[in-house]
Amino acid sequence: MIEPKILKGFRDYLPETMIPKKNIMRKLESTFESFGFSPIDTPALEYTEILLGKGSGETDKQIYRFKDHGDRDVSLRFDLTVPLARFVSLHYNELVFPFKRYHIAPVWRGENTQKGRYREFFQCDFDILGSNALTADYEILLLIMAGFESIECENFLININHRKLLNGIIDHFGLLDKSQNILQAIDKIYKIGKDEVVKILMEEEKIDAAGIHGILKTLRLDGDFSKEGIKGDEIFTVLHSIKDIISDEYTVYADELLTIFQYLQDAGNLHKFAYNPAITRGLDYYTGIVFESFITDRMNFGSVCSGGRYDNLTGLYSKNPVAGVGASFGLDRLLALLEDKEQIGKKQTVSELIIFNMNNDFIPLYYKLADQFKNAGIKTEVILDKQKINNQFKYAERKGVTWVVIAADEEFKANTFNLKNIIDGTETKALTVEEIIHTIKG
Amino acid sequence: MIEPKILKGFRDYLPETMIPKKNIMRKLESTFESFGFSPIDTPALEYTEILLGKGSGETDKQIYRFKDHGDRDVSLRFDLTVPLARFVSLHYNELVFPFKRYHIAPVWRGENTQKGRYREFFQCDFDILGSNALTADYEILLLIMAGFESIECENFLININHRKLLNGIIDHFGLLDKSQNILQAIDKIYKIGKDEVVKILMEEEKIDAAGIHGILKTLRLDGDFSKEGIKGDEIFTVLHSIKDIISDEYTVYADELLTIFQYLQDAGNLHKFAYNPAITRGLDYYTGIVFESFITDRMNFGSVCSGGRYDNLTGLYSKNPVAGVGASFGLDRLLALLEDKEQIGKKQTVSELIIFNMNNDFIPLYYKLADQFKNAGIKTEVILDKQKINNQFKYAERKGVTWVVIAADEEFKANTFNLKNIIDGTETKALTVEEIIHTIKG
Repeated sequence: MIEPKILKGFRDYLPETMIPKKNIMRKLESTFESFGFSPIDTPALEYTEILLGKGSGETDKQIYRFKDHGDRDVSLRFDLTVPLARFVSLHYNELVFPFKRYHIAPVWRGENTQKGRYREFFQCDFDILGSNALTADYEILLLIMAGFESIECENFLININHRKLLNGIIDHFGLLDKSQNILQAIDKIYKIGKDEVVKILMEEEKIDAAGIHGILKTLRLDGDFSKEGIKGDEIFTVLHSIKDIISDEYTVYADELLTIFQYLQDAGNLHKFAYNPAITRGLDYYTGIVFESFITDRMNFGSVCSGGRYDNLTGLYSKNPVAGVGASFGLDRLLALLEDKEQIGKKQTVSELIIFNMNNDFIPLYYKLADQFKNAGIKTEVILDKQKINNQFKYAERKGVTWVVIAADEEFKANTFNLKNIIDGTETKALTVEEIIHTIKG
Repeated sequence: MIEPKILKGFRDYLPETMIPKKNIMRKLESTFESFGFSPIDTPALEYTEILLGKGSGETDKQIYRFKDHGDRDVSLRFDLTVPLARFVSLHYNELVFPFKRYHIAPVWRGENTQKGRYREFFQCDFDILGSNALTADYEILLLIMAGFESIECENFLININHRKLLNGIIDHFGLLDKSQNILQAIDKIYKIGKDEVVKILMEEEKIDAAGIHGILKTLRLDGDFSKEGIKGDEIFTVLHSIKDIISDEYTVYADELLTIFQYLQDAGNLHKFAYNPAITRGLDYYTGIVFESFITDRMNFGSVCSGGRYDNLTGLYSKNPVAGVGASFGLDRLLALLEDKEQIGKKQTVSELIIFNMNNDFIPLYYKLADQFKNAGIKTEVILDKQKINNQFKYAERKGVTWVVIAADEEFKANTFNLKNIIDGTETKALTVEEIIHTIKG
């Protein structure tokens, strides 16, 4: 006998976890589609040279790479962005731009496992490609908001920043040559605190105290700054004050942020957003507006949806430069949120109603009855084999189903049936199918 | 620059193919769930020893196998059945039986590519585990039927046979010791013809003409047999005549088929089914009722949904024997059917309506307007940047969208808008949002 074990860092989804996961995916898909974003898919396996592209030490170490039967050097994708770049380059002439797509699919990384980190996980990306319009950035932000609302997650906050505006501030203090290191340090401010950031910049980067404090003060990161960023009308005050000090070439980026926050205010959505100068994202990739989203009563989860604008997605694979803006929902974190709220693990089945089996002779009748409930949108199971009624109740309880229908000779003759709610124990006899549907659908 | 190529046998799904593929998957999922089947998922990568199990030469050659970072011998799953066996063995005590599950996911086989065969493809499995009840077989058949109906495929026929009943017939002719070879030969009868089957059995298996003709005659495979099997009332006639000649130990299997066909007749569904003695499926796996489904006006596609009953799914991994019955839809074949009917490739987007951009100042208003359509279930895009109206029409046409809304100052003041159908060219001015929704939803 072979031991039925599973690889470390991988997991099975039992119904009690897969049902809520599928619900989240369906709601997000439906939201993406409501904005006109179309689904695409790409292979799990690609040529390694495609996936590694420019490569980075970290990715190289984590990628699942091997020789296939034709001795080709192949790898499992480690994200959905590199395959998207390859996809857009390969199909450039078949696509209509701006190209709005979403892609929900697994990726694989052989990294060291820790709590909540898996070697196989689903990404949920959505992007607008081939548009430089600021509206594209705005639309992605609206879509993030709609995504959270679709899964009934209310306490979210979308933090926005602009990479190039940060450069403007750093330039104002004459430190543009150290821009990358300053940004990396600021990016850590919520983790390590302001004092530690100052220390790094002074000791490691040899930046003088005046410059550091000037930058932090301009960014409102010098005092008791909130992890949730700058909110409400203060956003406009701060951005205007930044705009006043930076040199002209950078003011366009302040204006971009001002326009977006103005749109959000006009639409009555500003309370769901913050301007957060401490957020910088991956430095080598994003080139414009960037964003990270938090669940405000679960700040320890980190960002559950992040992204931003990038100048040239396809540069590695094509002469046709394609700009884009997009984001990605972390499905595992959303699922962890549901677990945290104890909304997971209650239901071992999708069934809403179980029809008990009082006699195998009624099988065709039970299934005809089930059809009527199914046609009304009620997920209905028939107990497959006659057994003691107590066992049938036990089955329904263990599966977590609320409603059962009990029917034998008399009931089929009268065409009315007995409905029991096994949560509260109430039973109603002699209901028509329509009455049962009405009761279940509430 | 890196050439943006894709591995042979793999493919990208552009929106025009991914949209119908997702539609098929959603409709099948919804059908599975209407019967109370719950989703599960398992990892793409497993220990090789788990996947190969008993192993077979063919599988060993095709499997994508490699050493991971921890020097573990791992492989990509080549089907969803072996992982299911491992899953049920590992989680035996967490599952409630009968366990009804479906699983739609990709599998990988490094086989030689031919037309219509891919190295990565989606399987769509559904099974009832842990029940010996004949009702489970019946339910799987009903579910296949409901699945075809859900995707508006009308011309299907589900062929049913019973592996053990075939053995009864072969035993009657004293040839049980050659049963496996006889079944393999019969399984090929539609491909190679009756005469060739007879030749193989005589020459290779040294079976005398009387035995061969006896078997074929009993199975109604001796004359001008139809590829679609035996239908209608003749099913009962043939099964009763078989029951009359086989020995007592086998009559229970004839009764199983008779019961199922009787259920189907009682429910008014018999015309969608056939008794087809030439169908035997994989011999080492299935042990009871087996089935294959055909699209009657696309017989060359082969079976698009097949399956059957198996005695002991978990035998390799566990002492708890778990019987099951299930089937699998071939998504690629269903998709090929849509392509064949030219129902694919028409739409490059999910969008139903595009709101033209007459002036970027209206952006917040355009998105507010879009919200009203989205809330009514209409997938709505906003043109991101102001451009010549001809370009906006061109974009809508290339994407395959029918409806566009045109609005500027006057329209927002009056709160009525212009709707154009760009397929037939009709334009209606000054419609309220409700009137537009009503027109689009027909």
